[in-house]
Amino acid sequence: MSIVSILESRVEETRKAGRYRNYVSLERKLDERPWVLEHSENGARKINVWCSNDYLGLSQHPAVVDATVETVKAVGLGTGGARSISGTSVYHTALEEKIATTHGKEAALLFSTGFTANDATLSTICDNVPDIVAFSDSLNHASMIYGIRYSKAEKKIFRHNDVAHLEELLKAYPLERPKLIAFESLYSMDGDFSPLKDILALAKKYNAFTYLDEIHAAGIYGATGTGYAEELSVLDEIDIIQGGFGKAYGGAGGYIAGPKAVVDAVRSYAPAFVFSTSSPAPVVAAALASLDYNSAHPELRARLLETVNTLKQGLKALGIPLVSDDSHILPILVGNPHRSKEISRRLIDEFGIYVQPVNAPTVPEGTERLRVTPTAAHTRQDVEAFLAAIRAVWLDVAAEAAE
Amino acid sequence: MSIVSILESRVEETRKAGRYRNYVSLERKLDERPWVLEHSENGARKINVWCSNDYLGLSQHPAVVDATVETVKAVGLGTGGARSISGTSVYHTALEEKIATTHGKEAALLFSTGFTANDATLSTICDNVPDIVAFSDSLNHASMIYGIRYSKAEKKIFRHNDVAHLEELLKAYPLERPKLIAFESLYSMDGDFSPLKDILALAKKYNAFTYLDEIHAAGIYGATGTGYAEELSVLDEIDIIQGGFGKAYGGAGGYIAGPKAVVDAVRSYAPAFVFSTSSPAPVVAAALASLDYNSAHPELRARLLETVNTLKQGLKALGIPLVSDDSHILPILVGNPHRSKEISRRLIDEFGIYVQPVNAPTVPEGTERLRVTPTAAHTRQDVEAFLAAIRAVWLDVAAEAAE
Repeated sequence: MSIVSILESRVEETRKAGRYRNYVSLERKLDERPWVLEHSENGARKINVWCSNDYLGLSQHPAVVDATVETVKAVGLGTGGARSISGTSVYHTALEEKIATTHGKEAALLFSTGFTANDATLSTICDNVPDIVAFSDSLNHASMIYGIRYSKAEKKIFRHNDVAHLEELLKAYPLERPKLIAFESLYSMDGDFSPLKDILALAKKYNAFTYLDEIHAAGIYGATGTGYAEELSVLDEIDIIQGGFGKAYGGAGGYIAGPKAVVDAVRSYAPAFVFSTSSPAPVVAAALASLDYNSAHPELRARLLETVNTLKQGLKALGIPLVSDDSHILPILVGNPHRSKEISRRLIDEFGIYVQPVNAPTVPEGTERLRVTPTAAHTRQDVEAFLAAIRAVWLDVAAEAAE
Repeated sequence: MSIVSILESRVEETRKAGRYRNYVSLERKLDERPWVLEHSENGARKINVWCSNDYLGLSQHPAVVDATVETVKAVGLGTGGARSISGTSVYHTALEEKIATTHGKEAALLFSTGFTANDATLSTICDNVPDIVAFSDSLNHASMIYGIRYSKAEKKIFRHNDVAHLEELLKAYPLERPKLIAFESLYSMDGDFSPLKDILALAKKYNAFTYLDEIHAAGIYGATGTGYAEELSVLDEIDIIQGGFGKAYGGAGGYIAGPKAVVDAVRSYAPAFVFSTSSPAPVVAAALASLDYNSAHPELRARLLETVNTLKQGLKALGIPLVSDDSHILPILVGNPHRSKEISRRLIDEFGIYVQPVNAPTVPEGTERLRVTPTAAHTRQDVEAFLAAIRAVWLDVAAEAAE
């Protein structure tokens, strides 16, 4: 059988399992958020997006748009090189300095994506520290898993947010053995925060280096919006903080902030960093503008959290189960792949409300969900429309399931 | 010892070996190409860049700048999601269709970087085709090596561009065993083309799937500029063609074009694709504009190749050795890491000419070089200034070496 036929059968299996992903082709328009035009074979229709990580709508904010426009008009788009070969612009240098400062760290480094930031940093640390043991939360993002999995580190997975289990694993190793704890502040698919202070206390007790992925909290929590570690005032107790501009900041790219030696090692040895063309200067300048704007405008974050709260109370009043209600991410637990797809389909077809179902393997089987993310652009009317729609569809689907 | 101290010593070793990379922070200005302002602790100075992959200067072309401006003003910057969760815009869909069409393939897929395009695609094919053997050119880019190295495939490395060696390796396996040949059309650090037709003939003879990285040829060769395969009229004999927009096209991002089943497998199973926020719509729209403009303007490519030719003849007349003289990339062979650094330093300090030295481990020890890349923006005067400068410095350094 040819390679193409083999892959064809493999994709066919995925399709039969109901896991094949069709993309929804969207046309956004400035100032029409959270509404967008969905294009398909059947033409275009207006839908209200409830599954975007552009939580604050900064992708369309004048601060971001203007920085992009001004920079591309001033210097052009692509940098034409890897960071070490003519690919470092004054914007890259300025943004890295700003990230380091705002996180209270010695240095910072930019990556084209948050995925690469995690993968490149974790693999570099694990491959360059002999005898290291990596302790990883069981729900860590794929990018962290990949960074650790193919490295030379000994790997230990602790049960999600289970501090007792982490301690059990940590204490099995001598104090002097190098240890890394990799975890997230806010888990994107579950919407729950980690027990950050407890994990930091364990790290201190067992002499472990800490790597914290803040990518879904960055831009939302803390006095200047850098993330959950800032909110808990523990920035200086964490070794490496990872974040990015593709979500709340409305742009693109990932970053790490931490000790200069670690940043130097990553920028010297990580192939995905060393051998990649750097991000376009306008994208970098826009990230800088977004960081500055968001830091100075806590009311934007407050508005988001207020909208989240209204929706959360409404869902609870309807008796609709949430995976967690910690954060601005509200995953509605459905628990069945066909039902989550059916609810999603009916919401969009009957009410113009777009929430992508999240099924296995992204989440464990039996925990299929609708990951609902309100944004600062959703009005009270949008929230009421969402609640009315989910109420109607949920009751119907529940009734069908009970039959 | 702490993890930070361990990495500090590791970086210190790199520094002692003369391999530590300091970045040159550049400020480009529209219409001043190939001149840029270099910023350092000593202030700013104007330098002429001879080591950019923005070969055609399209990063600053009105087609690219205008598309970026118009798109960010119309829809904003970031997409706010992975491709399957509200991160597919009409621009992504249009660009993928265009790439597929121009390469004569069923489908195409965009990635944030060319590195991810190679890594994600090769690892997905290798991990999903049982019993596959991957044959990889010894000078393949790090991204291809990584895609194959950590996969389940059996790996065979053939000597760079050595068709006889490749055949020797291929014929050791039964005809029905799935085989993948991964290679490049133009090797970035050596500037030489692969024996593309010969490798395709072997692929046919031994029933192998072909994966061709065209990233440094894309935009430069062929009637519409898609690459070297188009120039040789063999587009339809190659299974997967990889390329990107971060070099000749003046933007950012990578792509693959090939059979629908393969593209479907990558977009369904490759974590770095599935779990990454998609590229900003303005960057995607700019790539589309660049592709269209470049395709319709062969005179831009002709101008580049004319400039390359003038420089090549000049270097030959001076007796300066080139690693190869096949393409628009002209690597001057120095053969010693300290001399390549010294020549580079003197060129920039005394003549304002910026060429980054390329040392081990990027290239083998003893083959250290200056990778010179003329661009369409370099004038005849720029070329003459370059030749005068390299002549002076080369003679001096050669004299010192002989002492």
